[in-house]
Amino acid sequence: MGCLFCEIVVGARPAHRVFEDAACVAFLDVRPVFLGHVLLLPRAHHETLIDLPGDLLVPLFTTAQRLARAVETALLADGTFVAINNKVSQSVPHLHVHVVPRKKKDGLRGFFWPRQTYASEEDAAKVASLIRDAARS
Amino acid sequence: MGCLFCEIVVGARPAHRVFEDAACVAFLDVRPVFLGHVLLLPRAHHETLIDLPGDLLVPLFTTAQRLARAVETALLADGTFVAINNKVSQSVPHLHVHVVPRKKKDGLRGFFWPRQTYASEEDAAKVASLIRDAARS
Repeated sequence: MGCLFCEIVVGARPAHRVFEDAACVAFLDVRPVFLGHVLLLPRAHHETLIDLPGDLLVPLFTTAQRLARAVETALLADGTFVAINNKVSQSVPHLHVHVVPRKKKDGLRGFFWPRQTYASEEDAAKVASLIRDAARS
Repeated sequence: MGCLFCEIVVGARPAHRVFEDAACVAFLDVRPVFLGHVLLLPRAHHETLIDLPGDLLVPLFTTAQRLARAVETALLADGTFVAINNKVSQSVPHLHVHVVPRKKKDGLRGFFWPRQTYASEEDAAKVASLIRDAARS
């Protein structure tokens, strides 16, 4: 079959499962950013967020909400980080939502969001215009 | 009104808008991780993903899909990073989805996902069980 996450979905590969329903499966990431870091995926194989059919948006993100609540409660966290890597930095090409418990002063700020600025308002306007045109089509 | 993003939504504060519809507004982050980094938010004020009413899931994440496609096209990117900070590392308490264009070898790997491991399978099983119980309720 060749997809690591499809194998987990069907139970052919072990994982510490934390939730599942008809549309999705969630389990512990084996290399967590913080303990309790969960991966949530649609059972059906879709590579990225862009590829996900519209009828799976509600099942997937309702469960992301449920898991964000659950990891906060279970790990006594102050908040969560919910993220999807599409193609770049995506270790397994089967769409997965990272749900990571966060605590205040957990050390992730700073290096976690390295930021730059636009050289000028004109530069920003130019970039915005490119995206606006692409978003329209 | 007090909320920076509500002010942007109603046009009381300037922003480089890239997309908007009845439910959502998207504009350039002024301190981008990479140029073309967009923030997408529901017009209605909800603090975190957990707080978002179910009927806004499809409008918000359909647009997240649209913007992921758009920033890839507009910035000639190889992929995207789509993320939500809930409470911790959340600079403005109005739910916003970061949509960030990514390129191969853009330098974000490594420090971006600092990882640990579970000390033992038993430790992992214990954490999974806590989350499983919390996700059930």
